Amino acid sequence: MSGSAVIGIDIGGTNVRVGAVTLEGRLLCARDAPIAARQGPQAGLERITALIEQVVSTARVSLLGIGIGSTGPVDRQLGAIQNPYTLPTWENVDIASPLRGHFGVPVTLENDGDVAALGESWLGAGRGLSRLLMVTVGTGIGIGYIVDGRIFRGTAGIHPEGGHIPVDPSGPLCYCGAHGCWESLASGTAIGAYARELALSQPTALGSDPEQIDARRVAEAARAGDPLAIRVMQRGGLYLGLGLVTNLHLYLPDCVIFTGGVMHSYDLFEAGLRDTIRRCSVMSPLDRIPLRMAALGQQAGIFGAARAAMIEAGS
Amino acid sequence: MSGSAVIGIDIGGTNVRVGAVTLEGRLLCARDAPIAARQGPQAGLERITALIEQVVSTARVSLLGIGIGSTGPVDRQLGAIQNPYTLPTWENVDIASPLRGHFGVPVTLENDGDVAALGESWLGAGRGLSRLLMVTVGTGIGIGYIVDGRIFRGTAGIHPEGGHIPVDPSGPLCYCGAHGCWESLASGTAIGAYARELALSQPTALGSDPEQIDARRVAEAARAGDPLAIRVMQRGGLYLGLGLVTNLHLYLPDCVIFTGGVMHSYDLFEAGLRDTIRRCSVMSPLDRIPLRMAALGQQAGIFGAARAAMIEAGS
Repeated sequence: MSGSAVIGIDIGGTNVRVGAVTLEGRLLCARDAPIAARQGPQAGLERITALIEQVVSTARVSLLGIGIGSTGPVDRQLGAIQNPYTLPTWENVDIASPLRGHFGVPVTLENDGDVAALGESWLGAGRGLSRLLMVTVGTGIGIGYIVDGRIFRGTAGIHPEGGHIPVDPSGPLCYCGAHGCWESLASGTAIGAYARELALSQPTALGSDPEQIDARRVAEAARAGDPLAIRVMQRGGLYLGLGLVTNLHLYLPDCVIFTGGVMHSYDLFEAGLRDTIRRCSVMSPLDRIPLRMAALGQQAGIFGAARAAMIEAGS
Repeated sequence: MSGSAVIGIDIGGTNVRVGAVTLEGRLLCARDAPIAARQGPQAGLERITALIEQVVSTARVSLLGIGIGSTGPVDRQLGAIQNPYTLPTWENVDIASPLRGHFGVPVTLENDGDVAALGESWLGAGRGLSRLLMVTVGTGIGIGYIVDGRIFRGTAGIHPEGGHIPVDPSGPLCYCGAHGCWESLASGTAIGAYARELALSQPTALGSDPEQIDARRVAEAARAGDPLAIRVMQRGGLYLGLGLVTNLHLYLPDCVIFTGGVMHSYDLFEAGLRDTIRRCSVMSPLDRIPLRMAALGQQAGIFGAARAAMIEAGS
C-alpha cells in the first residue's frame, strides 16, 4: 500500500471511467470500458466492480470511498440510477448498495453534470473561484453550478435541469413539456434538426440526405463557407446566448466553463454569443463574467466524482 | 431603556418606513413619511434621521445597528444608493456613512427585493424553509432568493436582476437591452401597455383613452367579463408562468412567495400560471413547489432590513 485514495467513477452513455484520486487531487491510475448498457445493469455493475478492483490494486492504495457521476437522472438518496434514456435498461438501478456491500466503503451518487463542474472547480478551469457555472452543450444541454466548492442543489436536493428553461415560446415542443426550451434550440440535436429542415428546400453543401446532416457536419460546412450552414450556426449562437443570459442573470457566476461536443465549434458561436450577452448587460455586468473552456477534459468526471465522495465524508 | 433593537428602514419610491425590531423579531414601533425624492437626498436623509430618532425614543431602546432596504440599484460596498429612476436626484448617494456617523452604529444597505424576501423568510410566509424565492410583480418585476436564511448574491456580491431574463425574443425591447424580458411582458406596466395597444383597434369596456388604461383597470374589466381585458390578463398569466418556470428550474426553491400590486389580481392569473408550470414539470417536479402570497405586507421590508443588519453583525 502506498497510501489511500477515493475512487471516482464517470458513467456515460457509451463508456464508464474509473480512477483512483488522492485527497490532494492526484490521479494515480484510471481505466475505462464500454458501459454496454443493453446487456443490462447486472453486467454493467460487474464490469464497474472489476474496474475498481483493477484500479485499486494497480494504484496499491487503501480505499476510502467511492463517488459516482452518472448520466442523469439519478436518485441521490436511494443511490439509484433512473435513466432508461441514455442508459437503456438502467431504470431504477440501485448502484450504491452493491458497491457499498462489496467494497465496505461509503458510496456517493451524483448527476454527471454536477460532478464535472465540481471537478473543474476543484482542479480545473474554475479553481479558486467561489461561483462556477459549467454548461455542457452536446446532444443535450446540461448545467452544473458550484458555490464555494459545493454542488448547488434545489428543493429535495435535486439537480437543476438548466437545459430546459423556456427560451423562445415559438420554438419546437421538447420532451420536457416546454416549447422552445434552451436544449431544443441550441443543442447539437437542435442544430442538426434545424439544418435538416432547411436543407429540404434550400441548396447547401450539406446535401439533402437527412442521415448525413448533424451538428458536426453543419459546423464543418459553416467553416467552408456554406451560407445555409452559417445561418444555422448563427441561429444556434443566438439561442445559446439567450439561454446563457438567463443563467447569468439568475446565477451570476464568477466564471462560465463550457464543455461538450458542440463547444468544439465555439469559435463559430462566439461573436453572436458575446453580442447577445453585451446587449443584455444594462442591468447587471453580465459581459464581465469570463467565458472559458473546460480544462480537465474527460477526467473532470472522475475528479469531480471523487471530490463528491470526499465532501460527503467531510474531508 | 427597555432593551435593545435594530432599526429596519424600507426606502421606496414614495415613502420611507422606519421600525425598531428586537433580535427576536418583535416590531416595537414604526413610523413613515413621504420620501419626497425631488427635494434632494439631503432633505431625505434629514427626514430619515428624524424618523430613526423618533422610533428609538418612542421604543425606549438602545440602538444596535441600522439596516436599510432601498429601491435599487444600490452599491452595498459603498453603502450608496444609485437610483435616479424611482428616486429622482438620488444618484450615487452615500446613505450609510452619514447615518453611521450620526448614530455611531453599523449601517447595512441592501436591495429592497432582497430585504423583503429576507423578512418573509425570517418571520413571514417562508418561515422555516431553506430556499425561498420571492417574486414582486408591480410596476416592474423583481426577485429575491434566500438560502438558509441568507440573501443569495452573485459575483461581486450583486443582486440578481431576475425580472430581466429573456422570455420571448419576439417581445418588446426593454431598457435592459433584451427583447421580451420577463418584466417587459408580465409586469403591471407591460399589462397596461398591451391593453392600450389592443384598445386602439378593438372594442373594449376600457375605452380607448390611453390615460385611463392601466393594469388595475384591466384586471377590473377582466373581472367584469370584458373579452379584451380577459385576453390581456391571460397573456400576462402565460408570460408570468414562462418566466416563473425558468426561475423554478434554476433556483428550485422550497416555496415561491408573491407580492406586489399586480399580485392582487392573482386569481385572474392563477389557472394559466399553474397550467404553464404543470406542462413544464416533466424533468423536475416544478408543479410541487408551493406558490404563496406574502404574509408581512408592508412590514416585510422593515423586518428584512433589520434582519440584514443582524446578519451583518453576526447576531
